[in-house]
Amino acid sequence: MKLNILGCYSATPRTFTNPTSQVLEIKNHLFLIDCGEGTQVQLRKNKIKFSRIKHIFISHLHGDHYFGLVGLISTFRLLKREADLHVYGPKGLKDVITLQMKLSDSWTNYNLYFHVLESKDSELIFEDDKVEVYTVPLIHRVYTNGFLFKEKEGERKLDLNAVLNSNIDKSYFRKLKQGADVTNEDGKLIKNNTVTLPPPKSKSYAFCSDTAYNEAIVPIIKEADVLYHESTFLEKNASLCEPTKHSSAKQAATIAKLANVGKLILGHYSTRYDDLSLFKTEAEPIFSNVELAEDGKVFEI
Amino acid sequence: MKLNILGCYSATPRTFTNPTSQVLEIKNHLFLIDCGEGTQVQLRKNKIKFSRIKHIFISHLHGDHYFGLVGLISTFRLLKREADLHVYGPKGLKDVITLQMKLSDSWTNYNLYFHVLESKDSELIFEDDKVEVYTVPLIHRVYTNGFLFKEKEGERKLDLNAVLNSNIDKSYFRKLKQGADVTNEDGKLIKNNTVTLPPPKSKSYAFCSDTAYNEAIVPIIKEADVLYHESTFLEKNASLCEPTKHSSAKQAATIAKLANVGKLILGHYSTRYDDLSLFKTEAEPIFSNVELAEDGKVFEI
Repeated sequence: MKLNILGCYSATPRTFTNPTSQVLEIKNHLFLIDCGEGTQVQLRKNKIKFSRIKHIFISHLHGDHYFGLVGLISTFRLLKREADLHVYGPKGLKDVITLQMKLSDSWTNYNLYFHVLESKDSELIFEDDKVEVYTVPLIHRVYTNGFLFKEKEGERKLDLNAVLNSNIDKSYFRKLKQGADVTNEDGKLIKNNTVTLPPPKSKSYAFCSDTAYNEAIVPIIKEADVLYHESTFLEKNASLCEPTKHSSAKQAATIAKLANVGKLILGHYSTRYDDLSLFKTEAEPIFSNVELAEDGKVFEI
Repeated sequence: MKLNILGCYSATPRTFTNPTSQVLEIKNHLFLIDCGEGTQVQLRKNKIKFSRIKHIFISHLHGDHYFGLVGLISTFRLLKREADLHVYGPKGLKDVITLQMKLSDSWTNYNLYFHVLESKDSELIFEDDKVEVYTVPLIHRVYTNGFLFKEKEGERKLDLNAVLNSNIDKSYFRKLKQGADVTNEDGKLIKNNTVTLPPPKSKSYAFCSDTAYNEAIVPIIKEADVLYHESTFLEKNASLCEPTKHSSAKQAATIAKLANVGKLILGHYSTRYDDLSLFKTEAEPIFSNVELAEDGKVFEI
């Protein structure tokens, strides 16, 4: 799993900072998460192949999280995209995009599917044989979801020495990987766990932006390998959290601790701060494995 | 008059090129013309003070000419703008912007006025004591206008020697500048043109993008000091002009020649061309005073 931060600042795009957008590479999928203005240029700068993006997840309809979407959809058309594109986001997103396509008389030449998110409970919104994506309902000024990306458990690994010693015919290997017991060439029942090893641990990534401090998300993101949690403010401006429905670095760390995640990535910084290291300094006493998002930074998960 | 090119490429924003946007400074006004994605970052890079922009003119509703507008309007709000903002553009633009404000529950804290352009004839759309702005109806795939910016004629200049010799009281100077004849201290009628000089020639700038070759605009932009005319294609791709309703460099030069303008600036280049000098090479045999727009370039008019 690889996470590429395209933009991790709040509010407005600036000369050297970009609003929220991330690309998550997971089991050969390329998922785009949020799409602030300028995301298509950030995709180019980070050398991400446009055609590999087939699923876009939009957390909420504040501009710094989606104003780049209409341009990206339009650029896909100009690049003569053929692959289907699926967009998951709040009610209204489809209207915004289709109104602009109608006014420009520029309809996509590829299939564009909108999946409307409306539930206030966590729900499974994407699933194939390798990956599941769940919403993480957040508390913000407008309807907002985070997203939990989970690799499905893979096949069991053959313990090759044990398999050879047990005299099992090759034709049973597939069944063994799937967890079944098999009968060996001597007619003896071989218990699966005596000849296989557990699959590699499947990874998970939770994206939570934007949100007020919200312990209700803890059970949903529990034990995630990596949590990206917004930290718009430092403690000295904590009084701004409640009215704006944002979190401080300390609050993000508290959620990370309660959810017992592997690593916390902070981001969605207010543009009022020049020294981002203070976010880390404030979070670390509560949760030690903290990293700072930066535009263009890549995290291997 | 000063023209700052923020972006002059067609189609999609890329790492080092920007879609159409320009700032025209004229008689202390700062007019923004078109607003492709990324314009607010280009404004920052070009050190243009956001609050000085009070009038925005949108030629048409193709994304490369207005996808940056909603973000700019939203950024003005975040920057706590107080000054009124006037946006001139085709029908539908207001719907696109207000829908997005509604969905984000983020209304402007300043007055935002939309002026809907619908006429197929050139019309005066802005006027104050110093400047007039007219539409220049263009031919494109959707309803499109160019814009003609004209300084109003200033006051006449006093010919100081002549004034002194004519024994005119100072209290009449204002009237003289306004063109009136006055009576001097000896009771003699002094003809205005004997003691004043014509005002400095008032400048004009015509912006014409996007458009198919259209001689109908010639009378409207006649004698303009500077004409920006799109030249999406070179002659070798001229067959693309008609279906896309764009112009070639040669066609742009032909319009410049017919309108007898002072200077032609080419732009809105298709991103297929690496060597822009070819646009100049193709235009110059028809109209000699040609310059190439470049992102970040400033033209003094």
